[in-house]
Formats: sequence, C-alpha cells, structure tokens
Amino acid sequence: MRVQLVGIGLVGGSVGLAARSRLDAHVTGWDPDADAVAQAAQRAAIDAEGFDEQAEIAVVAAPVDRLAEAVTRALAACPAAVVTDVGSTKRQVAEAVADPRFVGGHPLAGAEVAGVQHARDGLFDGARWYLTPTAATPGRLYERLHRFVAGLGAVPAATDPVTHDRMMAAVSHLPHVVANVLVERAARALGEDRVPPTGPSFRDATRVAGANPPLWSAIYAANRDALLEQLDGAIAGLQAARDALAAGDDLTGWQEQAAGHRRTLLESGLAGALLTEVVVVVPNRPGVIADLALTLGREGINIHDMSLSPSADERTGRVALWVAEPDAERAMRLVGEVVAR
Amino acid sequence: MRVQLVGIGLVGGSVGLAARSRLDAHVTGWDPDADAVAQAAQRAAIDAEGFDEQAEIAVVAAPVDRLAEAVTRALAACPAAVVTDVGSTKRQVAEAVADPRFVGGHPLAGAEVAGVQHARDGLFDGARWYLTPTAATPGRLYERLHRFVAGLGAVPAATDPVTHDRMMAAVSHLPHVVANVLVERAARALGEDRVPPTGPSFRDATRVAGANPPLWSAIYAANRDALLEQLDGAIAGLQAARDALAAGDDLTGWQEQAAGHRRTLLESGLAGALLTEVVVVVPNRPGVIADLALTLGREGINIHDMSLSPSADERTGRVALWVAEPDAERAMRLVGEVVAR
Repeated sequence: MRVQLVGIGLVGGSVGLAARSRLDAHVTGWDPDADAVAQAAQRAAIDAEGFDEQAEIAVVAAPVDRLAEAVTRALAACPAAVVTDVGSTKRQVAEAVADPRFVGGHPLAGAEVAGVQHARDGLFDGARWYLTPTAATPGRLYERLHRFVAGLGAVPAATDPVTHDRMMAAVSHLPHVVANVLVERAARALGEDRVPPTGPSFRDATRVAGANPPLWSAIYAANRDALLEQLDGAIAGLQAARDALAAGDDLTGWQEQAAGHRRTLLESGLAGALLTEVVVVVPNRPGVIADLALTLGREGINIHDMSLSPSADERTGRVALWVAEPDAERAMRLVGEVVAR
Repeated sequence: MRVQLVGIGLVGGSVGLAARSRLDAHVTGWDPDADAVAQAAQRAAIDAEGFDEQAEIAVVAAPVDRLAEAVTRALAACPAAVVTDVGSTKRQVAEAVADPRFVGGHPLAGAEVAGVQHARDGLFDGARWYLTPTAATPGRLYERLHRFVAGLGAVPAATDPVTHDRMMAAVSHLPHVVANVLVERAARALGEDRVPPTGPSFRDATRVAGANPPLWSAIYAANRDALLEQLDGAIAGLQAARDALAAGDDLTGWQEQAAGHRRTLLESGLAGALLTEVVVVVPNRPGVIADLALTLGREGINIHDMSLSPSADERTGRVALWVAEPDAERAMRLVGEVVAR
C-alpha cells in the first residue's frame, strides 16, 4: 500500500509510523517545513520525500484554516488516492471540496505536545476516528480508507459533517472555551503574586486552557455556528444554576442529574466487547457503502472492520462488517433497511 | 498528644492514621455511624471510641450543613482542645461559632472515594491546609494546630474565611458547576443511545461532574454569595467569548491570554524550595500570632513550620517561622511590620 502524507506533525508523523510498521506501507511525505520532512525521514516515519503519484491513500494533516488548499493539492498530486484529512472540524472543508475522492476524517487522538518529534506508532490505538463519507463517495474508496484507519489501530465511525461538528462543539470546543474562562476567573480571584491553592481537580478541569493559540483560534472560527449554539446553551445552563442557587433551591437533584449524564457519557462504550461478523449482499448503487456506514454510525454502532467483495459482474457486492456482539442484531436489521432502500 | 476525631470518613480517618503513625498521637474517635467507628478501630485509625476530655486537638469532619452543631459539640466535650474542622467552606461556620478555641480549617485533599475504608496515612502529604485564625485566637492554640497540621504532612496556610471562600468559589465550586453544565450539554448533543465520542480531555474536564450530590449541594449553599459572584463572572466571560466569536474576531490573543493565566496559576508555587528560619520576638498581645500568619498568608508566603516560646514573664514570645528561602526577606519585612503595629 502506498500512502501520501501532506503535513507531517504529531498526527501526520504518527500516521506514517503506524502505516509503515503495521500495514507495511510505503509512505511519502511532504510538509511546507523542510525540517519536519527531515525529522520524519530520520525517525523513519516516511520512506520518501515529496509527492507519490501512485498513492492509494493521502492523509492531509494541516491546520483547519489551510485544509481546503492542502486537500485540493493532494487530490491533484495523487490522482488515484482516496484523500482524507485529520482536521478537528469537518463542515468547512466538506463544503469547500466537492471531489468525491475526498472523505473527511478526524481521529480523536492528540497530545499536549506537537511536532513530528513526538509522533508515535501507537497514537491511534483504540481511538475513535470519524470519517464523513457522502452519497457520492465510491464504496471501494471508503472501504480502503476504513480499513486503513482500522489498520492504524483506530476505531472508524462514519458520521456527517454537521453532526460531527455539533458533537465536537459540545465535547471539545466548548470545554476549551470554558477552561479559558475558568483560569481567567481563578487568576482574578487569586491576584497575580499569590501562590495559588490549586489542587489536581482544578488542574484537570483547566488542562486545555490556552492550548495552542493559533491552532485553536482557527478551530473555534471553523466551527463558529455549532460552537455559538453550545456557548448559548452553556450560558443558559449556568444562568439556570445561578438562579436556582440565588433562590435558595436545594441543588441535590440537579447534582444527581449531572451524575447521571456523566455515567451515560462515560460508562457506555464497547470496550472489551466481542466482535461478530455481519455479512450482507448489497446492490452496487452509488452511495450504498456510505449509507451503511452512516446509518450504523448514527445508531452508535462502531464498525471495527469492513471488507467489500464485488461480484464478478460488479452489479452487487458482498459486505462483511465486524461489530460488537451486543450490536449485531441491531446492525443486521439496519443493514437490511439500507439494502431495501 | 491526644487527638479527638468527630466524624470518621475519608478525611477524619486519614487524620487518625497520620496522627497515630507520624505524631505518635492517642486518637479517640466518634461518629454518628457505629459502622464507621468500628471500621476505624479495625484499621487502627483510632485508639479509642467516644470522646476524650483531655484531647489537645479536636478535628471535626462533618458535612458543611452540620458543621456548626458538630463543632459546638466538640468544644463542649473537649474543654482543653483547639477545635478545628475540615469543611470546604469557612465563612458560615466561622459566623456560627464564636468560641476563640475554634479555628476553621480546610485541607485541599480528598479523593473521588469516600469513607474510612479509603483513609490513608499519606492523604495530606504536600497538600495545602487552610487555617482561619482570628484576632481572638490564642497564639499557643494556633501554634499547636499549625504544628499538628504540618506534622500530618500538609502545608498550613492562614487566611480569613471570606478570602478562603472566594478562592474556593473560583478554583473549586465554580469548576464543579461548570462540569455539570458540560456533561448536560454533551448528553444533549449526543442523545441518549449513542456511544459518546469522548476522549481523555473531556473526561478530565468533567471528572467532578455530579460529585457526591448531598455533599456538594450543601457546599454550594454554604458558599452561595461567593459562588454567585463567580457564576456571574463566568457567564460574563462566556458571553464575551461568544460575542467575539459571533463578530468574527480573531481569538488568538484571547487564547494566549488564557495560556498566560494558566501558567501563572500552575507554574508558580514553592515546590522544592529550601526552607529557612525567620526568628522574631513579639509582644504577647492578643491576636499577634494570627496577625503574623494572616499577613504572611495574604502575601502568598507559606509557613512550613512554626514554633512559639513565651518568655518567662509571658510578656513577649520568641516565634520561629520556617519559610521558603526566596520568601525569607519578604517574610522578615512583613513580620517586622506586624511587630511594630
């Protein structure tokens, strides 16, 4: 397998390392920063520098405000490749790039550090990796990308760009803004020259405050609409808590509600579940694989692995999906619905 | 040294364990829950059950809404003791209890677990432990309490109840409310039956969401005024961020400001600094020790250890304070100011 990297920082470099060691891929890398390319070569994250016309997969890892430009460049340089990106927001780039060979992506992996020097083979192990196929996405390109991402160690999950951006606004971008506000409040309360009385819980709550300013201001801007909606919701939530407190209400029930939300959010998941195979023959119509992936993604079913075998006449295809055992029955029913459309 | 515990949960039990093993104390314990007393005895966190009339120090570890009652009980049962508490808010109990033998306290230690079964000897190692002496606090009682707290492994710091509660509102109570709002936003954005795409940063940001509902609703109520002020500030901060985002402003500068606040808050501190002794002879007037402790506390100077030796005629006293070397000059100047008052 031939892989092209466009942008080689922490994420791009880790894709290169994992693709080389786990998928035996030939990786070619390009970055506007010549030092990053040299370091990637030295760390064996890439086999070659520049662009590979024969690449089957191109991964664009650029700041969100330069994504569209970099994706367009990758589509032109790698005419046979499925091109994906790893940006934190998906709607903006999806709207900017119409080519069906482009499928947006977003691995939920990263670190407080940046740069190819911190890249590592196992960065994506067990991490959710969102993919945003559309009805126009060729099934075989999507399958290739899905298997590639799973091969890097991640758990691919299909979603649409708007849903993705709304979720990320709630679970990532809003918490970043809130962390900034918390450190500002604390700094004001404590004054400049005091030793702060902060313990581990404050450190945890504000770990992302002030994270990489140019990167994060671009993410906020790229997800403006969804983030504004979340900010309005958070302001309303704080105002409601404030009013209840001012009125002398007992907040025990409200605190219990939060405990329930937290359990729902954090204790669900499929860690450790056994996988089972769901096999279905699908008509070879445009968008059917994306439809399958999106339908299961919407229902919270992870596709841990996928394989696609077209019939000889290419009119139908056999699709095998590996899903967690508790999800299998639901997955089969949903797959049946997609096939019947 | 004879120590009385009133309330034996995680914190009370850990005080017992540390006092017995590190200070060779004789510890008597009382709790409304007979099981807790039995477990404390079994874990060797106490030597005896009930109340010790000869206790020199009594530590009250009760929920904030029952603190005043429990402190009053300890004052009556231990007539020679300096009585302290470990509650998360200090103004309410300070206003409710006028006895000069009571000095409020609050160790910044705890855990996600509760109960004496999780108590441990090292719970307070290196933890800040606020004390709230007043002008009425007898110097020798304050010294006794200070040394006791330091002997448990903590770093005592004097403050007044209002400042304490304002700080805690900013660095603890507001983050708890905010975490509740974040999990509520995320639960709404994700729906009930979806596998949530939450990574470690969301988990960190919301670790305290829904923490111990009866305990925390009482803490919010006990610190209502300061928490309302912080909530209003946080709402205003989020509104300002929202307006800047809606206006299309570049948020890079704002993000950098947050990074600066975070550095100020988290990278200061005195970890690892050498200690030095500051010795001063003070007039034996009421409140002088509390004045010293509060003056240094206000300037962010930790008193790591303290010893007080009255002169034979009891008209003056020699006070030795151990402070971090970089603070020594400032501490000496401040101590001079207190003596000259």
